[in-house]
Amino acid sequence: MITLRYVPRSEFDKILTAPLPPARKAALFAALCRINVLYMVKRAGSGHLGTSFSCQDLVSWVFLNEVSGADDVFFSSKGHDVPAFYAALSSLGRIPFEQIHALRRLGGLPGHPEVHIPNMETNSGSLGMGISKGKGMLLAKRLQGKKARVFVLTGDGELNEGQIWESLSGAVSRRMGELTVLVDHNKIQSDTWLHRVNDPGDLGAKFRSFGWRVVRGDGHDIAGLARTFAALREITDRPKVVIADTVKGRGISFMESFGAEEKFYGFHSGAPSDEQYAKGLEELAATAVRLFDEAELDRPALEEYQHRVPPSSPQIRHKLVEAYGRALVHQAERNQSLVALDADLIKDCGLADFSERFPDRLIECGIAEQDMVSQAGGLALKGIVPVAHSFSCFLSARPNEQIYTNGTERSKVIYTATLAGLLPATPGHSHQSVRDISSLAAIPNLVLVAPATEREVEAALDWAVNVSSESTYLRICSIPCILPFEVDGDPKMTVGRGSVLRDGKDAVVFAYGPVMTSQAVLAADELRGDGISTKVVNHPWLNRIDRVWLADMVRGASFMFCVDDHYTHGGQGDMLIAGLAESGWPPGLQVKKLGLSDVPACGQNDEILRHHGLDAAGMAQVIRASVGPQR
Amino acid sequence: MITLRYVPRSEFDKILTAPLPPARKAALFAALCRINVLYMVKRAGSGHLGTSFSCQDLVSWVFLNEVSGADDVFFSSKGHDVPAFYAALSSLGRIPFEQIHALRRLGGLPGHPEVHIPNMETNSGSLGMGISKGKGMLLAKRLQGKKARVFVLTGDGELNEGQIWESLSGAVSRRMGELTVLVDHNKIQSDTWLHRVNDPGDLGAKFRSFGWRVVRGDGHDIAGLARTFAALREITDRPKVVIADTVKGRGISFMESFGAEEKFYGFHSGAPSDEQYAKGLEELAATAVRLFDEAELDRPALEEYQHRVPPSSPQIRHKLVEAYGRALVHQAERNQSLVALDADLIKDCGLADFSERFPDRLIECGIAEQDMVSQAGGLALKGIVPVAHSFSCFLSARPNEQIYTNGTERSKVIYTATLAGLLPATPGHSHQSVRDISSLAAIPNLVLVAPATEREVEAALDWAVNVSSESTYLRICSIPCILPFEVDGDPKMTVGRGSVLRDGKDAVVFAYGPVMTSQAVLAADELRGDGISTKVVNHPWLNRIDRVWLADMVRGASFMFCVDDHYTHGGQGDMLIAGLAESGWPPGLQVKKLGLSDVPACGQNDEILRHHGLDAAGMAQVIRASVGPQR
Repeated sequence: MITLRYVPRSEFDKILTAPLPPARKAALFAALCRINVLYMVKRAGSGHLGTSFSCQDLVSWVFLNEVSGADDVFFSSKGHDVPAFYAALSSLGRIPFEQIHALRRLGGLPGHPEVHIPNMETNSGSLGMGISKGKGMLLAKRLQGKKARVFVLTGDGELNEGQIWESLSGAVSRRMGELTVLVDHNKIQSDTWLHRVNDPGDLGAKFRSFGWRVVRGDGHDIAGLARTFAALREITDRPKVVIADTVKGRGISFMESFGAEEKFYGFHSGAPSDEQYAKGLEELAATAVRLFDEAELDRPALEEYQHRVPPSSPQIRHKLVEAYGRALVHQAERNQSLVALDADLIKDCGLADFSERFPDRLIECGIAEQDMVSQAGGLALKGIVPVAHSFSCFLSARPNEQIYTNGTERSKVIYTATLAGLLPATPGHSHQSVRDISSLAAIPNLVLVAPATEREVEAALDWAVNVSSESTYLRICSIPCILPFEVDGDPKMTVGRGSVLRDGKDAVVFAYGPVMTSQAVLAADELRGDGISTKVVNHPWLNRIDRVWLADMVRGASFMFCVDDHYTHGGQGDMLIAGLAESGWPPGLQVKKLGLSDVPACGQNDEILRHHGLDAAGMAQVIRASVGPQR
Repeated sequence: MITLRYVPRSEFDKILTAPLPPARKAALFAALCRINVLYMVKRAGSGHLGTSFSCQDLVSWVFLNEVSGADDVFFSSKGHDVPAFYAALSSLGRIPFEQIHALRRLGGLPGHPEVHIPNMETNSGSLGMGISKGKGMLLAKRLQGKKARVFVLTGDGELNEGQIWESLSGAVSRRMGELTVLVDHNKIQSDTWLHRVNDPGDLGAKFRSFGWRVVRGDGHDIAGLARTFAALREITDRPKVVIADTVKGRGISFMESFGAEEKFYGFHSGAPSDEQYAKGLEELAATAVRLFDEAELDRPALEEYQHRVPPSSPQIRHKLVEAYGRALVHQAERNQSLVALDADLIKDCGLADFSERFPDRLIECGIAEQDMVSQAGGLALKGIVPVAHSFSCFLSARPNEQIYTNGTERSKVIYTATLAGLLPATPGHSHQSVRDISSLAAIPNLVLVAPATEREVEAALDWAVNVSSESTYLRICSIPCILPFEVDGDPKMTVGRGSVLRDGKDAVVFAYGPVMTSQAVLAADELRGDGISTKVVNHPWLNRIDRVWLADMVRGASFMFCVDDHYTHGGQGDMLIAGLAESGWPPGLQVKKLGLSDVPACGQNDEILRHHGLDAAGMAQVIRASVGPQR
């Protein structure tokens, strides 16, 4: 147990009502916001501290002084800095203050901006869309005859994305003087320094070459920011960008520090340890006290929350991404032509070891998935085996057309997509990849595979590299899972065929990936107590089915359930059903699809599985309701 | 009938073996190539003349003088200039010369580059991927220890695409001195002048700000180009771009001419009329003769081909895009909040009248689909009804993630996608949109509708604007169609329900869109002669099904056929089958999906329908094979 502390709203009111100059007021406000950001992320168990801290001064200034008109708009395009926005908005009463206790909880504040939360102007999560969105809002206001100023906050890593540059020209030709972009230029991307990932060069020159008015300044010097924004108000004939030099992790010394010798920045995402929390809070509180003293205000009083994290289970957890990383090194040792491409997610895609072992065979592309995938296509056309990596939500969608074009060339590319499926549910729907099967499955020459265990990850990669003549999309779950089933021997990768995890005769359940197979097996075990005998099949092939095997699997069963870690529309279930129907529907067989029918909710993993009826109890209930009455 | 003329290979050999200085040789070569480009496009009945002519001098110089090493690579990123490449490569013997007679024919030369044609390095069609592809090829060569120079030709309109700018940084940090990008800067996009569509501003400054070496010159002054390329060979520490000022339609006076008062450029795509052909050939031939005379070579002798175009049918053709354009104006007259967004396809999306009538409500975004779709999202969030337009192959894929993000916001956006489906088949697979249903259908709050008739287009748009609370994707066929069925009264837009075009009792066929419904009706009429009674249902809803209605539609039938103008995987058929299965599979019903299982072929429309078994005869054969033996 650890005591967490947060700043109650009354302390913010003290600042807001005090007769202080705007810059000093904003500095005090930001100092308190940082304490609540730390609180929210620690309590949630995950979140993005580094980027929230780097933009907190900017965010505070803009909310307190710039978005004054009824139609003014301010939002973040990078989105993962949303704790900074929540801290500011809750303190201003623009979202219910008590919501700060429910970051990343069902019914609470989502891990990335969502429009159902007041004053969240747009959904974000995937990078690079914000300037375009802001332009649209601004044009709407113009059409409606309303005066509105639009402020869009972007990251600097985010500027890797092509859509940013695609969006700039139109703002100039339409003379969007109402539009101001703020670049939180903290110089560190997800993994490491910008210049090591995708060197931005002279950002100011780039924006200027596109016709924008550019100013650059210290993003933590609020008095300076105040002068900058005042000057920019006078410029009305063109869009403007403020490149704000900031420090990632600003406010906590050890989060600010990132030595040239270190490989990865430590505080991009995730919650701090108890010790880090305590030390960080101490620093943030000391800063706040100093600023309050200087402003001659009573020192702020924090409130307490007793935080208890349930002890972690001693059971073995399958870590598919780590297994993947080892397997990739193993393949690379044997195949000189194997090259990895990355989109600023080395750690999250299991590439840390690979990057140490084969630095010349790692092509770091930055947050530029389209460029990465087309480069992979070029490599494949010239005899290399490229393996392109990103989160599945991004890899399946942002370069969707590029993947298809590669597919039409019949070259062989491997796409490794981590963070696949409904879980983790804490970042929210922009990171819950539950649409990738549908958006990719029709692509010719591309086989989609979702392994359920560490050994199946190894086997799937081996199959993709050494057996398949087609391209492969590896759909890998990123959360460590406790598996309630044993896996004997090496998984056989026979296209379109899966394996039986539990045998049974009344119903057969098809699932894939560690989360859904586990819940299905637990459901089957629960149903056994009701006298319902349920077969559970792990079928890792998402767009290939062996119809003979499938007919054999369902033979004798009266009920078939297709569990998708995905929307039910366009998932594996549709393929299984169509395959069965085209070979002749087994007389009397009833079928039901389980999965998502609407945008997934954000929250802790267990509550979200339950919410969508995809935990073992929910599955058992559906199966019982179907099978039970007949017995 | 008209006599077409082309330059035989022997005339090219005459140039290639003559002792001429390289620049003069290339100029002669290009002059002859233009004659064959005109021939190919006229004979094919479609193609892109303007852009082929503007880059022909560049293409000729590079093939003759720059790509000399075994591993050197040269390709076009814009792709629709492929006639210029075919003309050059066929004359050099690098593709079989006789293929110039088979542009856009099955088994001939595809309408856009495809890698199965020799010396076509990569598939293109969608814009903006080429620099990334070239970087990948270059990295492959480096890894293989080979020396290779990579030349990528781009359009200037193409520079609207974000991927272009996304791809630039990595080339600098990896010091890609082997890479040269050529910009065919003819100043005219698909519809009109660049500066009217998406003003590029100072292109040189932009590339320079990204760290590239920039040179600019006259793209038709081959001697100047020769000096430019010689100088660029010395620069090896960074990527280089040649911004070549060119004239769209270069070589034919009336194709070069585009007055400031004209709204649309007339020779971006399509074949010239007989008169235009004759006049154009006369000019090209006169230029060639002059150059040959100056070089003191025997004048070139052309060969002849008697070209006969079958007379067009007097039957009424349904023109869905034109109907859409009228319907949109009709809606806009009634709804001040309706705004159209366009991606440089005003003519092809039926927006010409709208742009005249409501210039302030047309947001021209240029070839920047991601920016367009996110702007539409911003507009929708602020109370506007945005209608975003492009070809369905691009609109469904390039901004796929942006459409999903809009969907998660539950705002209402209408996406109008023309050029949908297998036909026209002449541009090739990059423009044959046969994957859009799968890539979009799972998106929550997005309804996909494919109207089959002009009146259904009107009804669908009316439904999307005035009835639906969700977003709509309108999938519209662009080729004029003769419909073998009558449509009585106004189509009813009842979600998930279609209409019966032919009644029958032995089999029921589901189809959508004008092409597939027509072929299905013709098949049913043919089968009637065999005593097979076939019901044909037009079901325009691609991701919505009324299961009660569906069960009613198939009642009594023993066979069900689902025709998709799409890959069979993830098309409407999968949805119908899953819907039927979940409501209880009708005993004894057999089902078969018809559609595409692999990348569609390029060719004339009738031959491609036949090739894929999706013409009436092919459908009838499948139905007969299933139903027949049982009778």
